[in-house]
Amino acid sequence: MALRIALDAMGGDKGPEEMVAGAVLAVRGTGLSVTLLGDEARLRAALAAHVFPADRIEVVHASQVVAMDESPFDGIRKKKDATIVRAFALHREGKVDAVVSAGNSGATMAAAIKYLGRLDGISRPGIAGIYPTLKGPVVMMDVGANVDCRPRHLYEFGIMAAAFSRELFGVERPRIGLLSIGEEGGKGNILVKKSHDLFLKSSLNYIGNVEGRDTFQGDVDVIVCDGFVGNVCLKLSEGLAEAVFSMLGDEIRKSVKAKFGYLLAKDAFAAFRKRVDYAEYGGAPLLGIKGTGIVCHGRSNAVAIKNAIRVASEMVSHRVNDHIVELLAADNLDDLLAEAESSGALQ
Amino acid sequence: MALRIALDAMGGDKGPEEMVAGAVLAVRGTGLSVTLLGDEARLRAALAAHVFPADRIEVVHASQVVAMDESPFDGIRKKKDATIVRAFALHREGKVDAVVSAGNSGATMAAAIKYLGRLDGISRPGIAGIYPTLKGPVVMMDVGANVDCRPRHLYEFGIMAAAFSRELFGVERPRIGLLSIGEEGGKGNILVKKSHDLFLKSSLNYIGNVEGRDTFQGDVDVIVCDGFVGNVCLKLSEGLAEAVFSMLGDEIRKSVKAKFGYLLAKDAFAAFRKRVDYAEYGGAPLLGIKGTGIVCHGRSNAVAIKNAIRVASEMVSHRVNDHIVELLAADNLDDLLAEAESSGALQ
Repeated sequence: MALRIALDAMGGDKGPEEMVAGAVLAVRGTGLSVTLLGDEARLRAALAAHVFPADRIEVVHASQVVAMDESPFDGIRKKKDATIVRAFALHREGKVDAVVSAGNSGATMAAAIKYLGRLDGISRPGIAGIYPTLKGPVVMMDVGANVDCRPRHLYEFGIMAAAFSRELFGVERPRIGLLSIGEEGGKGNILVKKSHDLFLKSSLNYIGNVEGRDTFQGDVDVIVCDGFVGNVCLKLSEGLAEAVFSMLGDEIRKSVKAKFGYLLAKDAFAAFRKRVDYAEYGGAPLLGIKGTGIVCHGRSNAVAIKNAIRVASEMVSHRVNDHIVELLAADNLDDLLAEAESSGALQ
Repeated sequence: MALRIALDAMGGDKGPEEMVAGAVLAVRGTGLSVTLLGDEARLRAALAAHVFPADRIEVVHASQVVAMDESPFDGIRKKKDATIVRAFALHREGKVDAVVSAGNSGATMAAAIKYLGRLDGISRPGIAGIYPTLKGPVVMMDVGANVDCRPRHLYEFGIMAAAFSRELFGVERPRIGLLSIGEEGGKGNILVKKSHDLFLKSSLNYIGNVEGRDTFQGDVDVIVCDGFVGNVCLKLSEGLAEAVFSMLGDEIRKSVKAKFGYLLAKDAFAAFRKRVDYAEYGGAPLLGIKGTGIVCHGRSNAVAIKNAIRVASEMVSHRVNDHIVELLAADNLDDLLAEAESSGALQ
């Protein structure tokens, strides 16, 4: 049966017209169906500007929106008719197979947990970030949902990101690294040192500590960190990439020769931009919930939304959640924790 | 009186000849004197290739080196004749005014604390990283010396980095931001939330939380974080900058037109590289010790070493340490901590 993805059409900085354009690209390119949630009149007006198979996009009216700066928990509790609340309610009822939103990511996570619940064996669902590298993509988890973590949470992030990497990027046994400040197991903060021992004892393909500079080399498939560190990394990377282009642009504008040179090399710049563009990966999957969700960058354009809808559908068709549960079953986490504790590593 | 800087001539990946070349550039360009520590025969042979005022470079033989992968504490304890140990011993005896090393940074910090001690009122000396931004440089502290921190340590990093920013970059009242994952004071991990309240109550020019993406905008002068997060950021930035150039190079090499364009824009690329090159700032100052030290990147070339020697001399002539002590005296940290605790922020 064809999958149906709910899209929070009021999320994102570019407005519902951009979300609608993304939904249209998705149904045209993928054979999926989309349910748009938001202001019905506005969404229907936006849809009127497009040509698409009419039976594959439906509109469900939702009169409220959890704002970007609103408290996630208050937002979803107080606004029962918010797009993101209605979207996950539809997911719970089985009327859609996944939810995509470029709105308040905390509210998306909170609504996912409230309406769908956690996967069995997962105590902390999280958000996975996908980075381009010199080779394939790398999955970093958690990138913002869980700021203060214990070793078992990092272990869960490793399991979830590994299942995602395997199913979405076809990596048979993803190499998992623990983000630290030195490659030796003895280096890192208390959380990392304790987690290192847990990963060593696990059945995962753990390659040890990795450093920030390894993120973009492509020699590791999954990078595990707490959500504070992961979110700082995500935003630092964005800021640095922007600053690099801005400074390079400044220098190029200073000389006519350089400007001409840039015009000649423009296609190469465009190809490079496409290679590092977050829009290519669509968004950041929510992992660890009984269902499927993707949070997109607030600045997402129609292409990013189309890709997020595609990735959401692949997470469903590849049964990522079943693989998370399978990987969890390969280890007895309580035994691992007890073993690590008795060996002194968790003291 | 002219200042004399000790240089660990056996540190760094490029070998003592590069260190010697850096020392020669420094004495030629700055009027400073340099004491080289290392294998005397090898250093004298390297010096023979250069022209420089002979009385301004002296060589002190040291027969051992703390290796890059050696435990800092074991290294400085066991190797009494190590370059970095001898350098800080000279500093303690008043024979040099500062120490510069591109060797094992942990050993440099450990030797500094052992031979010079901590500044009064500082419990945790640290390492400050200097980043280029779209405007002036920003100082991030700590970038690796203290991985597990409490709020008082972050407060100390803020004081030390502010004194450095004021004296080295001429920023009268440096704007201090706390690295977090949202701009509101309520966002962050436990450490950041507690530290936020402490900074708010302090006399510092605290502007609140900043995010990773703000690092390169130049709207903040000092970014405070624990040494785990700071070190991850430092290495992630390095790795990302390298990956960006590598991917862009790949794309440019794919087309003759783009290659030609790149040649025309080459000066702009070179100017940009110079702007973001860590070598321009020389290295990362050790702050909070009773003396002056700079740790340089292992890959430092002669220019980076020359700049580090210059920055070390400016730290001495601008009396950065006196200004740290002055800034500390403006607040009573114990009162601030007690106040924050009674208001519930440190619970």
